[in-house]
Amino acid sequence: MSDTPKFAVIGGGSWATAIAKMLCSNVPEIAWYMRNNDAIDHLKLQKHNPNYLSSVEFDTNKLRLTSDINEAVAYADYVIFAVPSAFLSGELEKLTTSLEGKVVFSAIKGIVPETSLIVGQHFHENYDIPYDNIGVITGPCHAEEVALERLSYLTIACGNEKKAKIMGKNLNSHYIKTKTSDDIVGTEYAAMLKNIYAIAAGIAHGLGYGDNFQALLMSNAIREMKKFIRKVHRMKRNINNSAYLGDLLVTGYSVFSRNRMFGNMIGKGYTVKSAMMEMSMVAEGYYAVKSAHKLNKEYKAKTPIIDAVYAILYEGKDAKSVFSKLTEKLD
Amino acid sequence: MSDTPKFAVIGGGSWATAIAKMLCSNVPEIAWYMRNNDAIDHLKLQKHNPNYLSSVEFDTNKLRLTSDINEAVAYADYVIFAVPSAFLSGELEKLTTSLEGKVVFSAIKGIVPETSLIVGQHFHENYDIPYDNIGVITGPCHAEEVALERLSYLTIACGNEKKAKIMGKNLNSHYIKTKTSDDIVGTEYAAMLKNIYAIAAGIAHGLGYGDNFQALLMSNAIREMKKFIRKVHRMKRNINNSAYLGDLLVTGYSVFSRNRMFGNMIGKGYTVKSAMMEMSMVAEGYYAVKSAHKLNKEYKAKTPIIDAVYAILYEGKDAKSVFSKLTEKLD
Repeated sequence: MSDTPKFAVIGGGSWATAIAKMLCSNVPEIAWYMRNNDAIDHLKLQKHNPNYLSSVEFDTNKLRLTSDINEAVAYADYVIFAVPSAFLSGELEKLTTSLEGKVVFSAIKGIVPETSLIVGQHFHENYDIPYDNIGVITGPCHAEEVALERLSYLTIACGNEKKAKIMGKNLNSHYIKTKTSDDIVGTEYAAMLKNIYAIAAGIAHGLGYGDNFQALLMSNAIREMKKFIRKVHRMKRNINNSAYLGDLLVTGYSVFSRNRMFGNMIGKGYTVKSAMMEMSMVAEGYYAVKSAHKLNKEYKAKTPIIDAVYAILYEGKDAKSVFSKLTEKLD
Repeated sequence: MSDTPKFAVIGGGSWATAIAKMLCSNVPEIAWYMRNNDAIDHLKLQKHNPNYLSSVEFDTNKLRLTSDINEAVAYADYVIFAVPSAFLSGELEKLTTSLEGKVVFSAIKGIVPETSLIVGQHFHENYDIPYDNIGVITGPCHAEEVALERLSYLTIACGNEKKAKIMGKNLNSHYIKTKTSDDIVGTEYAAMLKNIYAIAAGIAHGLGYGDNFQALLMSNAIREMKKFIRKVHRMKRNINNSAYLGDLLVTGYSVFSRNRMFGNMIGKGYTVKSAMMEMSMVAEGYYAVKSAHKLNKEYKAKTPIIDAVYAILYEGKDAKSVFSKLTEKLD
């Protein structure tokens, strides 16, 4: 594999579109898989993704668009998965092309519901991909601001530093700065856990808690995240680096975050089911909290915020009284 | 001194008013000094501070209002200073009553411009008050949310734990939770440094940086704060506790923060002088950055954000180009 490998983006959503945009400023061609044929036709004709980040114009000469995931994977040396975690298994079932020898990057920031694994572990355990070929692309980065070319920083984690650097180099631009990390487990857990804390922030807001409490909640969340990740994978890491704290803040403080929005509806009294229907999409944190709760039966980290969100979303507990008890445990 | 000491609040602003409100839910009487006689008359008659948190109604039977600082200090065992740092020296010049034996709490969150000292050190060095009698009341806590009785958490730091607990107990209520700390130097520096980072956040916003950068900036700010405070006063502290990270976030993310607003104007192209005139008040961070910069000549902590704010506010450097260089130093 050369230093200028071939890239494929898997997914048609906003984060996939943002990554395709970033890559296109560096490489002559990418493969881009999306299952929606109408979107592909629109993109080919109008040079925009009709459904996500539609302001971004693509040089379509650079895009090998396909609705066949096998075609995209076969083309690439580096395959970047950027579909919602709930759809990953379904997409992978279509795969007949081998992933052997390919570098697989996760830009998913969630948990695979069927296996309760973070994406990197899912590929490692179910597809025999060595950690040397597994990576994570993480924020703090809203796709919407990539569309606007507002300066954003990414952390590229990979078991193999050289591959992390190659990935980073090909995402860099005047508005994207990347750094590398060897913490593939920690960065991916952080990206997944932050969605739970964003739901918590939303619930608090929906219940009428204010900015003082939000700051207190985030300060507790980062300490809780540190404890949890440390139990899962102990190594030297600074939890205040941008891939952990930065990513938590950009989501936890964003009024556009789907997770925060979902939490806000719960806090305002919607049932889980009606909040999901209202949003017509699933918040990643909904799966994440189930998995984190299950994992934590083994790890036994002290996680009052995760426990509270779990009790509300999965045990039918009343948000108001759960949060009232939670406030006694925070400081 | 008994466990139910007498309290005096020094200051007529929003934070002083919030503290007076908190105390009044616990004690039968407080002394409250403000220099504005009209405000005192209004308060006595209308039960509201006319200028700050005017929605808060006081039981005036509990208030010994006075425009004579000596009267308030003479009355109290615990004296809480909550004036803007720029006015502290002027107020203290009026003092003929001794502070000996009194417990002095700072709720100022700034630096004394004349001595470049945090308030606790100022009292210690210039008024011979032992650290055992010096304390700090710190957030994350906007006064406006105290007025609304939205749940807020305070950290009460004091060299003497018992006195910290007494202060905390007398501020507690159904919407205020307090914890104690022995880190009087660190919490007060954090409260002062966060104003500089709020100015930085404002400048970034004014220059057009987005939410992704803001999260990155805060993630760098807390790491920078940790390094700085560690140089000033090394002790075991968790910088992610609410008195440090929480206080940074509530200010750095608040659109109501005077420091952030001041920075925003600078980012949008106002000169320092015109921004100050426009706001008709001085942002605490303006003094804080001068002092931090001066102190850091001795401590030599790596503080690119403080350096950038200093260069813009005191060296007449162009905000856009300073921030452009700063973005290269953050990660």
